[in-house]
Amino acid sequence: MKKKLFVFCMVSLLITGVSKAQDDLNPNHLPMELTTFETISLQQPDLNSGDALMTAMSKRKSDRDFQTGNLSLKHLSEILWAAYGSNREDGKKTAPSALALYPLNVYAILENGIYLYDAGNHVLIPVIEGDHRELAGGFPAAKTAPLHLVFMADYSNYQNTGNDMIDGFLKVPQTRVRFASLDAGHCTQNVYLYCATEGIKTVVRGSVEAGFMELLGLGENHEFIVAQTIGY
Amino acid sequence: MKKKLFVFCMVSLLITGVSKAQDDLNPNHLPMELTTFETISLQQPDLNSGDALMTAMSKRKSDRDFQTGNLSLKHLSEILWAAYGSNREDGKKTAPSALALYPLNVYAILENGIYLYDAGNHVLIPVIEGDHRELAGGFPAAKTAPLHLVFMADYSNYQNTGNDMIDGFLKVPQTRVRFASLDAGHCTQNVYLYCATEGIKTVVRGSVEAGFMELLGLGENHEFIVAQTIGY
Repeated sequence: MKKKLFVFCMVSLLITGVSKAQDDLNPNHLPMELTTFETISLQQPDLNSGDALMTAMSKRKSDRDFQTGNLSLKHLSEILWAAYGSNREDGKKTAPSALALYPLNVYAILENGIYLYDAGNHVLIPVIEGDHRELAGGFPAAKTAPLHLVFMADYSNYQNTGNDMIDGFLKVPQTRVRFASLDAGHCTQNVYLYCATEGIKTVVRGSVEAGFMELLGLGENHEFIVAQTIGY
Repeated sequence: MKKKLFVFCMVSLLITGVSKAQDDLNPNHLPMELTTFETISLQQPDLNSGDALMTAMSKRKSDRDFQTGNLSLKHLSEILWAAYGSNREDGKKTAPSALALYPLNVYAILENGIYLYDAGNHVLIPVIEGDHRELAGGFPAAKTAPLHLVFMADYSNYQNTGNDMIDGFLKVPQTRVRFASLDAGHCTQNVYLYCATEGIKTVVRGSVEAGFMELLGLGENHEFIVAQTIGY
C-alpha cells in the first residue's frame, strides 16, 4: 500500500512538472521579442475566454506600477481587438461610434516603435521606428511599460457626412471632441475589462508629451484624445 | 413499455409546465410597475452572471427597435450598477474618472419620472415626476422605450482640485468636455456589454431635446454629455 502511494505521488509530481514546463513553453504566455520593426500579424481573439461579465466589472480598476516585460502576442492581440476590433462581418466594432463615423486612429507604442492598428486586417502597421515610450508615458513606471495605446481623432471623417446640418454640428470644437472622446471611452473601457480578467495592469491618461504629437507630424484636423498604458 | 413512456412524457410535461409557471412568477423577470413616484431601492448585482467577457464584446451592438414594456427591477438595478456603480469599498466605480473627479450625474428617465442615481446607496432618487421620455428620446421608438440614461457633467467638481495648474487646465472648455465624455464613454460601454449578454437593446445618442435641459433647470456649470436608450 505504501509503495502504491509512493508511486502515485511520484507520478503526480512528474505530471505536475511536465504540465508546468509545457505552460512555460506555451507561446500564448511568452513575452514578445520585438527584434525587427515590421507588420505584426495579430492572433484571432478567443471569444470564449474571460471572466463572467459582471465579475470583470467588479474587478475593474486602475493600476500604475507596471513591470517592464513585454506582453505576449496573445494579450497584445486581444487588447487591440477589445479596443477597436471588428466584431461583425460588416466591419462594425466592439465599441460604438457617434454617427458611425469612426474618427479614431489607434496607435500602439511598443519598445521598438510606433504602430497603427488596422482593424480590418487585424494587424499592427509600423509607422515610426525606435523606443518612443518616454513621449507616450507620463510617470516613471509608464515610460517603461510595454504598451501604450494612443487614441487620436482624425476629424476629416467629420466633414463630409452628406448632411449640411450634421457637418455644421461637427464643426463645433466642443461637439467634435465630445463625440471622439465618447468613442474613445468605449474603447478604453473594453481594455480595462479585458485587463481585469487577465490580471494585466492598465490606466488611462489624459495627456502625452508635446513631442509625441510632433513626432507623428499630424495636421490640424487631428487631436489627441486619450492614452492608455498597459503592462504586467 | 408504451404505458411507461406515456407516464414519462406526462411527468416531463408537468415539470416543464411548473418550471415555466415559476419562471413567469420570478420577480427578477417581471416588468416593474411604477405606480408611485418614490425612491427606488435597487437590487445588488449578481457578480457571477453574464457571458464570458470576450463573448460579450463579440455580441456588442446598437439596436433602435425598442418595445414599450418596462424593464425588470433586476435589469434596471444591474444597468445602473454597470453604468456608474461602486465596485470597491472605498466607493470607486465600475468605470474610471479622469483625475478621479467624477463630474457625472446619471439620470434615469422612466415612464413615471426623472430619477438621479445615488451610487453610494445604490438607489434612484426621484427628481421630477411625469412622463418626460419624449424630451429624452430622439426617434419614435426611443420616445416610448422604458429607460433612458442621461449623463450630465457638473463642472463644479473641476474647480477646486487644490492644484492651480490642474484647475487652469480644467477651465479650458475642450479639456473639460473631453474628460467628462471619456468618463461617460466608459459608463455607456459597460451598459452596452451588459445588454449584449442579457439580450436587451440599447443605443447611445449624442443629443436630447432642448426642453429636457430646461426641465432639469441646471446652471451654467452643467453640460449634457450623452444619453443612452435601453429596452427589450
